[in-house]
Amino acid sequence: MNVELLIIGSELTSGDKLDTNGQWLCRRLASLGLPVRFSTLLGDQWQDNLLAFAMAAERADLVVTSGGLGPTQDDLTRETLARVAGVELLEDPASLETIRAMFARRNREMPERNRVQALLPAGAEALFNRTGTAPGIWMQAGRARFACLPGVPSELKLMMEEQVEPRLRSLGLVNRVVLHRIINLFGLGEAEVEAKALDLTAREHTPEVGITASDATISFRIRGEGPDEATAFASTEPTAQIIRERFGVLVLGEGDVDVPHATVAALSRAGLTLATAESCTGGLIAERITTVPGASQVYRGGLVTYATDVKSSALGVPVELIARHGVVSAEVAESMAVQVRNKLGASIGLSVTGEAGPNSSSDAIPVGTVYVGLATADSVHSKLLQLGREQPRGIIQSRAAKHAMNWTRLTAILRG
Amino acid sequence: MNVELLIIGSELTSGDKLDTNGQWLCRRLASLGLPVRFSTLLGDQWQDNLLAFAMAAERADLVVTSGGLGPTQDDLTRETLARVAGVELLEDPASLETIRAMFARRNREMPERNRVQALLPAGAEALFNRTGTAPGIWMQAGRARFACLPGVPSELKLMMEEQVEPRLRSLGLVNRVVLHRIINLFGLGEAEVEAKALDLTAREHTPEVGITASDATISFRIRGEGPDEATAFASTEPTAQIIRERFGVLVLGEGDVDVPHATVAALSRAGLTLATAESCTGGLIAERITTVPGASQVYRGGLVTYATDVKSSALGVPVELIARHGVVSAEVAESMAVQVRNKLGASIGLSVTGEAGPNSSSDAIPVGTVYVGLATADSVHSKLLQLGREQPRGIIQSRAAKHAMNWTRLTAILRG
Repeated sequence: MNVELLIIGSELTSGDKLDTNGQWLCRRLASLGLPVRFSTLLGDQWQDNLLAFAMAAERADLVVTSGGLGPTQDDLTRETLARVAGVELLEDPASLETIRAMFARRNREMPERNRVQALLPAGAEALFNRTGTAPGIWMQAGRARFACLPGVPSELKLMMEEQVEPRLRSLGLVNRVVLHRIINLFGLGEAEVEAKALDLTAREHTPEVGITASDATISFRIRGEGPDEATAFASTEPTAQIIRERFGVLVLGEGDVDVPHATVAALSRAGLTLATAESCTGGLIAERITTVPGASQVYRGGLVTYATDVKSSALGVPVELIARHGVVSAEVAESMAVQVRNKLGASIGLSVTGEAGPNSSSDAIPVGTVYVGLATADSVHSKLLQLGREQPRGIIQSRAAKHAMNWTRLTAILRG
Repeated sequence: MNVELLIIGSELTSGDKLDTNGQWLCRRLASLGLPVRFSTLLGDQWQDNLLAFAMAAERADLVVTSGGLGPTQDDLTRETLARVAGVELLEDPASLETIRAMFARRNREMPERNRVQALLPAGAEALFNRTGTAPGIWMQAGRARFACLPGVPSELKLMMEEQVEPRLRSLGLVNRVVLHRIINLFGLGEAEVEAKALDLTAREHTPEVGITASDATISFRIRGEGPDEATAFASTEPTAQIIRERFGVLVLGEGDVDVPHATVAALSRAGLTLATAESCTGGLIAERITTVPGASQVYRGGLVTYATDVKSSALGVPVELIARHGVVSAEVAESMAVQVRNKLGASIGLSVTGEAGPNSSSDAIPVGTVYVGLATADSVHSKLLQLGREQPRGIIQSRAAKHAMNWTRLTAILRG
């Protein structure tokens, strides 16, 4: 079963607009057991439409298109499809009536130019659009079954669910549920994770497992399949179990659970609270922690000690300590962690001080050097991170914040 | 000149991830006078890669690809391109050295798996990647010139600008410049801005002007065109001048200049410093301010007083004041602003306290109620914002942060 999308609109190929219909259709079709092979963006040019529709008619079994059904001259889907199928365009009286009625409901007369929206290739079926003027088209052309939908996202989604999916079911094309279970880890590089999971990611492994990395969080993606959702989910469980056992505490959780969520959850389970003192991350840890629902149970607050003297005046790091070791040092990181813990009355004090760039204030300390400090009631430690002197500032800040939160998470797990 | 994109990754065709590289490349190539005809998403399947690369090699003049250059088994771009060009894959010693050096800078040994990233189709040129491990590929295959870039957005963008564009110029392919000049404002709704600019956005207006809104920042987009960048830019200047005159201090700046950048710039010009005390925004203002280059000149630091008692214990807001007026009140906002200004020794103290939701802690105070406080040496004021009780938490936080920063910006302009 070859499924393709054609996503039409010059505002997309010019980069003026971001296509989101393609993503929605990809996800929806995957969940119906009809994974998309190719999704092609193309502009409102006649030759390009002809080329793309003709190729899809030749190589795909199902083609879903978005856009090109409006009333203007650059709306070419009706004509293109008729040409590719080798048929005439005919006015569909029922569609014309529907379009007139749609305008009537808005207390307007149908403009003459909207009349073209009632044209259909001979032999096509109109797909009812209950929220807009453009009917969709359902027809065979070449080898492929075409479902042509309007580009307005809300109309496209409704019509896919209400008009296209029942037709796919009645053709017997939808009888599987496919889902992707995502398991996220933090603390190893993508290649290291891959090396520990070659058996799972091998092409012949069932279920199919992929690995992706996003901002240093590594995700396993397990494909589940079955006649219904529960069976599809169950088919992923043995693999999920292996991943959990093999990667242990590095596993953050599933789905959207990234380092901040897992950190709040670990603190919450352990009954611990957190206070933060941030220098080069400038409040990023506080910001990420406080976007997690339930953060108020575990997060006391924090200081952003951006100017060096504020580390002493507001946080209480001894001036001599900064003078002796420099502001980017293990000693200052540890002092910041201890001070913020005491000051805000938290179980754990977490601190970050480093050089996020683009320029370092000291020749001795390259950009990307970050110290993280962590204080508990009975201990204080620090860690040196080298996050790469070529990395952009935002990446260094984000990595530093994630490493710091992850250390907190692991501490909470150990102490919990 | 036929330009195509191939955007590779099963996480894209499954709909798990939204492709943004395609949009960025479409816009970038359009600005070079190289509009994209087709942009095709495809997964990490060998047959699909082969089919898509072979077709692009046959019908396009320039193909830019994203993804498939990583070290894992499903990274197929190197092999596919070699097959389509009919050549062998060879290890490139210079690329291998670069990859090893990249790991060395992070104090890590190169995992053996990453060695495959140094493979190149015979006759290809490596595109240097200074922020990641995957080198790009530049080579002729069939009719088309291929530029293969990694899927990591930051790497793709840098390499497009630094590696691909100079090569396109030296091939004489770039000879028309289209640019979009963006002018950003904050403080009026989109409809209000539109109503004041109907003459500029009319279809017959030259140059073409559009208005978009993103997170309450309103942007004018002026299209400039010419044989070179200077001429294209100059064609937008009369319109830009009208916008600046008509909207005055509401204009934040151009391009990527949003509220945080404009706030840092205004403080810097006025020679003023800032300290922040944040409750419901959880460090978001600190985080946004400190991502702006040069923030260290004007930003002293801040407190995130997330737990109520921390507002008293760490910031010094009188316990009685909180008891009398409630934590979400004008009085507490003003006290927070005064305290943080004194504590951190700044010219301006800025505070935020409010209910960001999803649930309000008090029946009397609906979600979306936010007080902003601003203290200077001789004054303290507060503002009540009603940001909508139906809005998601993230939107309320972001709007509150922007309004607070913008107030700081306007204060700095008046006092500067």
